This record gives sequence, structure tokens and C-alpha cells, in this order.
Amino acid sequence: MDRLIEAIEAKQNPSVVGLDPTEALVPPQVVASFADEVRGEVESDEEAPAAQLAVAFYEFNRAVIDAVADIVPAVKPQIAMYEALGTSGVDVYTMTCEYAREQGLYVLGDIKRGDIGSTAAAYAHHLSGVGEYDPWHEDAVTVNPYLGTDGITPFVDAAAAADKDIFALVRTSNPSSSEIQELELADGGKVYEHVADLVERWGESTRGKRGYSRVGAVVGATHPEEGRALRERMPHTFFLVPGYGAQGGTAADVAGMFDQDGSGAIVNSSRGIIGAWKKTGSYGEAMSADEALDLVAESARAAAIDMRDSLRVAVYR
Amino acid sequence: MDRLIEAIEAKQNPSVVGLDPTEALVPPQVVASFADEVRGEVESDEEAPAAQLAVAFYEFNRAVIDAVADIVPAVKPQIAMYEALGTSGVDVYTMTCEYAREQGLYVLGDIKRGDIGSTAAAYAHHLSGVGEYDPWHEDAVTVNPYLGTDGITPFVDAAAAADKDIFALVRTSNPSSSEIQELELADGGKVYEHVADLVERWGESTRGKRGYSRVGAVVGATHPEEGRALRERMPHTFFLVPGYGAQGGTAADVAGMFDQDGSGAIVNSSRGIIGAWKKTGSYGEAMSADEALDLVAESARAAAIDMRDSLRVAVYR
Repeated sequence: MDRLIEAIEAKQNPSVVGLDPTEALVPPQVVASFADEVRGEVESDEEAPAAQLAVAFYEFNRAVIDAVADIVPAVKPQIAMYEALGTSGVDVYTMTCEYAREQGLYVLGDIKRGDIGSTAAAYAHHLSGVGEYDPWHEDAVTVNPYLGTDGITPFVDAAAAADKDIFALVRTSNPSSSEIQELELADGGKVYEHVADLVERWGESTRGKRGYSRVGAVVGATHPEEGRALRERMPHTFFLVPGYGAQGGTAADVAGMFDQDGSGAIVNSSRGIIGAWKKTGSYGEAMSADEALDLVAESARAAAIDMRDSLRVAVYR
Repeated sequence: MDRLIEAIEAKQNPSVVGLDPTEALVPPQVVASFADEVRGEVESDEEAPAAQLAVAFYEFNRAVIDAVADIVPAVKPQIAMYEALGTSGVDVYTMTCEYAREQGLYVLGDIKRGDIGSTAAAYAHHLSGVGEYDPWHEDAVTVNPYLGTDGITPFVDAAAAADKDIFALVRTSNPSSSEIQELELADGGKVYEHVADLVERWGESTRGKRGYSRVGAVVGATHPEEGRALRERMPHTFFLVPGYGAQGGTAADVAGMFDQDGSGAIVNSSRGIIGAWKKTGSYGEAMSADEALDLVAESARAAAIDMRDSLRVAVYR
């Protein structure tokens, strides 16, 4: 986790921008501007809308990345948004990761993969690549712990070999997360606390010079008290904290998930940054695609600075 | 789930062939035969081995599909094996699904996706497609329940709208599955039993004419007693049973996961079918690629017939 921690320190900013584009978050003139380009490239007419949206996602992402690359240490593309469009979307996911890396950003692929051991070993190629070829361009990925240790070990090994990291789901930010994660156990504690202990153990042999292992934990901003307790419980586990902004988490909510030195966590905002243009009141349908992308970029930058400054006040006490 | 049940009945065979190719499972001369074709198509030399393996996976899968299409009702491509190769692998995953469907097979995409509600809605496009475009060609997908109801509902809605199905992980076949799934709860029962009850509930509004809902459960063949108990506990939930064959499960182990009518479950074998050629003793390095693929096909067909016949004896009592 040292690379991420150093990137955070260099920018004095423990936040990550979620690149989760949807059709509603991309200005329609940007999508429209790719109609001709796409028409000649797809195999069938029915494929065109998805391919067109995928290209628009890439342009949108590049505008956001260019606007925030000097402010934030990391981006977190959510692969679901790209998979929704099929293979042209998956292509754009990898292109987005590659572009972000070229701009010096740490790329956290939000893929939440998880399977039994032999299959997890295949997924771990997200981190280890194929020979010299790195098809996914990710510095870290999120993983799902429900299958237990043998589903996680291949990711840990791949991360250690490639100087990369993983983040396992512990306490997610969504309303239904309590249904399984908060179940009370007969031996005391809750399911997510048991998972937390597993995660701390999974990372044990991979602690870096900052004291944090290569196995981080996903802990939602919407659970501030639990997050504070988990910070104590998992002293060598770095936190990825989703749920800030649009999902309701505030800088005060996440403050307890950091350690005494203001390290130990990175907070994600997606819609709050990439959708900031919709709240400016400056958007107009008559804008050109370039004008609309400029607005996206300016407002994303302003929102990223706001978030950084709020976190600095709350965290770097 | 009616479409799957009817397909099983038509073939009198409750088994599904896992299409989980790895480099070790594809005869090397098949991979080598694509060297020239790939060299002209990739953007960089380092990408060539992954792209070559991806094309080989497709030829391998087609040989297996052609060999078993009149025997089995369904195939289950494991997307991890394809993601391991990057976007050329993902392309081959979708091409495999499309080809299998064209041969009349029900395609169960083993993707184990799961995320919070808004993101799960994006993943659910695996089932619903984009307008008229169906990029993934899947009839069902597997999902991970760790995030609770709001992470599953979008898949259920998409399945209902598209006449498709999902299978949620309940009790997986791997050795570490007990670490979280078997935890004892303070209110009685175990985590996987609680998940089982959620899964039965998630499917409630989507029961078909055979009494099974569109929300199936993954229950490993390596847990025969638990599987029998889950069959009682989840009367409207169809089971996908991995872990047969190479992982140690037998026809007798899975018999209890079927209902009184010999319905209610489908059993997966991957390596036992697609890797059967390695156990024949007939393979030789001097074989041509076509000869090697013929051996793959013949031995996969023989193994699929063996499995069908074993299951018929154990299940259709």
C-alpha cells in the first residue's frame, strides 16, 4: 500500500475520484458527437448506441482525469458501468485505466471479483497480467470475501509479486448491507467484524514500510461509528471509504476511519465529482460538445478541490 | 427457471458443462496454430500470447460445444478464465456464449457479480442488454449476495423482464467456504442458511410454472448433507451444483439436492469434461491441431455421456 500512501501524501489529499459514468452523467451533445464515428465501426446497427456511449464515456473520463490529475492521487473506475455496454465498454474501461496511469494516477479497479481458489487465480491476472502484457492497467482491485481465504490468496500473491494492492469488502455503504454483514454471531461480534479479522490476517505477510498491508478493506462512509471501531480493530489495514457525498457521508463521518497521523484511509466520491456539472446551473442544451466537456472538467475540478479541502480540515488535525 | 427446466427434461440430463479453459487444458498445437493469424492483428508484440490463447480458447470451446450440444442442456462459461487474458479474452467469452446459444444451449454466465444497488443495476445489463442489443448472450448469471437485497433486486428485475435467471452463491464448493458461510449465528443457524432464506425470498415474486423462481442458489457438491437440508429449506429455489468430478463430488453426493421428481438442480462439471482428453492416453505431441481438437471433442462427449448416465441413475429414481 506504500505507493498509494505516498501518492496521497504528495497531493495532501486522501480522496479518490470514482469514474462511474452513466448515460445520465454524460452531456448528451458529447454522446451525439460520436454518432458518425461509431456508425462505420460497429458490426450491426443495434450495437451502435452502446458503442457510441462507450466512446463518449472515454472522452468524458479523459476530461475528468485531465481536470483532477494534479489534485487527486487516484481514480476508481467502476467496471460495472462499462460492462453494461458489452465489450466496447470493457475496452473503454481498460483505456480509461491506461490513460489515468499515464497521467500519474494510482488506478483502483472497482471490480469486486471473488471465486473459488483456482478461479480466483484467473481473476488475479487483473494484477499480474500475462507475461509482459498488462491488459487491465490497474494498481489495485476490490474483491469479495464471501468465499473465504482460498478465494483471496491468489490476489494477495499477485499483488505482492506486482507491487499492487487489493481491497476486500468488509462493510459496504448500501442500505441492505446490514442484512448479512451485521448478523450477530454465536461467538460474539458480527459477520463484518469476523470478515475484518480475516482481512487483517490476509494482509499479515505483506505489510509495507508505512505499516499497512497490501490487503485493504472497503468500509462505507455511511457507517461512521463502525468505521471508527474498525480502525482500531484493523491497525494494519488501509481503508477504501465509499459513500461520501451523493450517498450521504460527510468529512466528519469519515474522520474516524483515519489513523492518528491522518493516514490509513482514502475516501471515494463518484457522482459528487463527475456529476458536479449538473448542479452548476451553467449547462445549456445549446452548448457544443467541447463546451459541455469544459463545463464537466471545470466543475469536477472545483468539486475535487472542495472535497480535498473538507477532508484536510477533518483529517489532518 | 422454466426454460432451463424444460431444456433439462428434453435431454433427460441435469448437467451443465463448465467452459473454463486454461492454457493447461488446451492442446499446445491448437494454440500454436493461431500464431500467424494473431501476429497481424495485435497492437503490440507483448499482447500476442494473450490474444493467441484467446483465439485458441474459442476454437477449443466450439469443439466442446459441438461435441456435447445434443447431450447437455446448458453450458457455464467461467468469465474469470477469459478476463485473465484481457479484452481479447472478454471478446471470446461473449463469442462463446453466442455460439453456444446458436447451438440451442442455455448459457449460464458464471460471473459472480455483486455490488451496491445503483452499480448492481449496471451489472444487470448482462441480462437486459442495451436496447435491442444483447452484448453478453447469457441466459442466466451467478451473483454474490454479500451486499444484501438492494444488490440483488436489479438482477431479479432484469431477469424477470428478459425471461432469464440468476443464481446466488449460498454454499460454495471450495475448502475455505466454511470460514464465513458456516459461522454460527446468535439467533440460531449459520450464515449460509440465513443467505438461503434471503435467496428463497428474493425469488418469491418470480415463480414459474414448475414452482421454481428465477433466483437459483449455488450449492457445492462437496457438501451433500447441507445440500439435502437446503433442498428442504428452499423449496422454490433451483440449485446450481458445482464441485462434481475434479473437485470430488459424486452423483450420490448430489442426489439429495434434487426434488422428489428428479428436478430442482443442475450439476456442473468443468475439468472432468473439457479436460477429459488428458486422461485418455491417446494424446500425442505429434498430432495436428485438428487431430488434437477431435480428441478433445470425442473425450468431452464420452465424459458428458458418462456424467449424464451417472446422474440419471442417481437422480431419476
